[in-house]
Amino acid sequence: MPITRRAFLGASLGACAVPWTSFGLPRRQAVVSTDAAALRARIEALSAFGRPAGGTFENGVSRVAYSDADVAGRKYLMDLMSAAGLEPRIDAAGNIFGRRAGRDASAPPIVFGSHIDSVPSGGNFDGDLGSLAALGAIEALDRAGHTTRHPLEMAVWSAEEGVAFGRGLAGSRIVAGDYKPADLEATWNGMTRAEAIRKIGGEPDRIETAIRSKGAHHCYLELHIEQGGTLEARRTAVGVVQGIVSIQRYRATITGFANHAGTTPMAERQDALVAASRLTLAVREVVTSHPGRQVGTVGHLVVEPNAPNVIPGTVQLIVELRDLSPELLATMADEIRARAAEIAPTSRTTIDLTSLGGNPPALASGDVQQAIERASSARGLDSVRMPSGAGHDAQMMAQLGPMGMIFVPSVGGVSHSPRELTTWEDCANGANVLLSAVLEMDRS
Amino acid sequence: MPITRRAFLGASLGACAVPWTSFGLPRRQAVVSTDAAALRARIEALSAFGRPAGGTFENGVSRVAYSDADVAGRKYLMDLMSAAGLEPRIDAAGNIFGRRAGRDASAPPIVFGSHIDSVPSGGNFDGDLGSLAALGAIEALDRAGHTTRHPLEMAVWSAEEGVAFGRGLAGSRIVAGDYKPADLEATWNGMTRAEAIRKIGGEPDRIETAIRSKGAHHCYLELHIEQGGTLEARRTAVGVVQGIVSIQRYRATITGFANHAGTTPMAERQDALVAASRLTLAVREVVTSHPGRQVGTVGHLVVEPNAPNVIPGTVQLIVELRDLSPELLATMADEIRARAAEIAPTSRTTIDLTSLGGNPPALASGDVQQAIERASSARGLDSVRMPSGAGHDAQMMAQLGPMGMIFVPSVGGVSHSPRELTTWEDCANGANVLLSAVLEMDRS
Repeated sequence: MPITRRAFLGASLGACAVPWTSFGLPRRQAVVSTDAAALRARIEALSAFGRPAGGTFENGVSRVAYSDADVAGRKYLMDLMSAAGLEPRIDAAGNIFGRRAGRDASAPPIVFGSHIDSVPSGGNFDGDLGSLAALGAIEALDRAGHTTRHPLEMAVWSAEEGVAFGRGLAGSRIVAGDYKPADLEATWNGMTRAEAIRKIGGEPDRIETAIRSKGAHHCYLELHIEQGGTLEARRTAVGVVQGIVSIQRYRATITGFANHAGTTPMAERQDALVAASRLTLAVREVVTSHPGRQVGTVGHLVVEPNAPNVIPGTVQLIVELRDLSPELLATMADEIRARAAEIAPTSRTTIDLTSLGGNPPALASGDVQQAIERASSARGLDSVRMPSGAGHDAQMMAQLGPMGMIFVPSVGGVSHSPRELTTWEDCANGANVLLSAVLEMDRS
Repeated sequence: MPITRRAFLGASLGACAVPWTSFGLPRRQAVVSTDAAALRARIEALSAFGRPAGGTFENGVSRVAYSDADVAGRKYLMDLMSAAGLEPRIDAAGNIFGRRAGRDASAPPIVFGSHIDSVPSGGNFDGDLGSLAALGAIEALDRAGHTTRHPLEMAVWSAEEGVAFGRGLAGSRIVAGDYKPADLEATWNGMTRAEAIRKIGGEPDRIETAIRSKGAHHCYLELHIEQGGTLEARRTAVGVVQGIVSIQRYRATITGFANHAGTTPMAERQDALVAASRLTLAVREVVTSHPGRQVGTVGHLVVEPNAPNVIPGTVQLIVELRDLSPELLATMADEIRARAAEIAPTSRTTIDLTSLGGNPPALASGDVQQAIERASSARGLDSVRMPSGAGHDAQMMAQLGPMGMIFVPSVGGVSHSPRELTTWEDCANGANVLLSAVLEMDRS
């Protein structure tokens, strides 16, 4: 017979799935849970800020960073934080934080959250789920009367989607210190970045005060929808993110000869689009020839002169490769380069393949991944380790300390679309795993 | 020993290669020839009208129809015609004609010529060669003191290239009666088509007077550069055009699903560009799987949303097929449709293939083809029958009576480019074959 015993509160709340008995049996017991109904109601309420005129929840949201809808949505969220007894603070970069004291004032905080800005015509789960679940986790601990050892800090990062002012200066990036003063002078929609940051309550003149130092927090956790279809296809409730992939881009310039589509015999053509078609298929073949979850895409392709009666003379396309492993990325790039070297002479074209650079992978901490796995298991939920193919604020936070992310299934793998959907059950599961993972990490 | 005898002048000038002896041996004898040096000097002189500022002959020409350069080039040509004793006449559509009387005033004229307008950044041989060789043929007959039975009519058609006002209303098209009054109201470059026609000396208010009736001429002949590489590759001096191909176009709309290029696993993608690449290669495979000179091109392709980090959701492309045989065109279209039906499900897309229509082939007359072959042979030149993959004024004239075209080699198969080139020797050969073919046709 297994021996059970009541563990200390932190462990019981964390619902640790590590065997506590010498018999190695998992232990299940009542755990504190987040309020699933409140989570749903808040996601629905938040969706009103930036909803298309006359639309419903199903019509998605356009809550682009620094827009009036963004400002209104942030106020809604900060009001909820205040009601929960958190005193929301906006840092110089416009990020919102709410801190709950821990038992050990000298311990570094556990930070967790997400963002609430959206792409234009986006969905109501990307970012919103992780932000509202973070608040729900703190409220659950309040209800349980449990104080963690580490201080807890809820974070709602500004401008994650990189729509305004283009990619590259999310609030979390500023916190990681990865910006230049000139970035504040960029203009978009009739305002400078400095004015935009001021609009959401930040202080661009003191922007450097937003920077956090390495090791200033215990770990960073983020719950997010998967945005892909892997979890749904596997019927797995939780994705334990291994890291955020490296993205590498290459520009292929294919040069043939733009000649008359009527008078040029098939054998004499130097058709840049025929070569580009072969290269596009070669990218897919190379990427799928390796085991793993790496992806490769030709998403951008432009034909010149692009007339029905002229053989394409030039095609420019962009190859994008994503994976956690820089080695695999380099191998695939080499293989694509080799395929291009075969395609060029057989299509009588030249193919120039130039690296446009990319970003290194942001690996999740092994400890945090294990904490999320234990948290999932304790909730009776299957989990699977997987890369994040999309960028997240966690990518920036990985520069400063241990990071981990919890993914929940996206119906149909759809995201950045009004059709973006995660079931309320999966939302609640994710929120509970976040809560448990915070408590797991609080034990270390 | 073969018996030779002096044939009547027309036959000797035509240098008929058909055996004139019971022994069946071909007869060769001195024939009147065009002035190769004058032809070259005139092609070079004409190139100045529309030459890029500071350029040379090698920089090509931009003598777009109805431009000031076109007007100046037409004046240069008409002055040459006047000097040669032709009285240039501009018809209501802006076409230029010069008539030389024949022995039989009741015989319908033999019409021959080409055009002198160009595409922007075009070459100095497309149209110019056939126009100036037509004048040279008449001058050669003047020098030889030979009067043909049929009247001869040199033609320089207006606006062949279809640059101004878009495709479809060349002067030859008006002559064939293939226009609508509303066409004259189209605007381009700040003028209506009526104003443009008036600018080059036409009479848009009497446009219907330009129409010619079927059978009003004996035949139409046109010397033109091949604009493709077939003759050069075969080292053959003369192409005997079998007809001007039918052009059929199809719009393919490929619908996938625009999803996140980072989060969507390879197996779950509905990538419209992958499907479009397969279709583009299938078009080439289908077209080259049949013997013959048919061509097929995907020259126009547009990707949506065309972002490096988004899987292409939609691709629109245009398939263009050209051949003399409507049956082969229909077969190829069916085969491409069948390939699309295979590609769509395997790429998880839908492919809609819609006919955009086209034009029927314009077949050359068998008699005229044989006359050109005899003329080539008499000049000691190899010839080969071939389709014209490009459109020509001869296409319109085929609606009104027997038509034939003479092609001479294009170096590298290049046309509609400053790099367009036909050697002076080939120009002279073509001009002589035109002259001889006119005389061959005068015998019937």
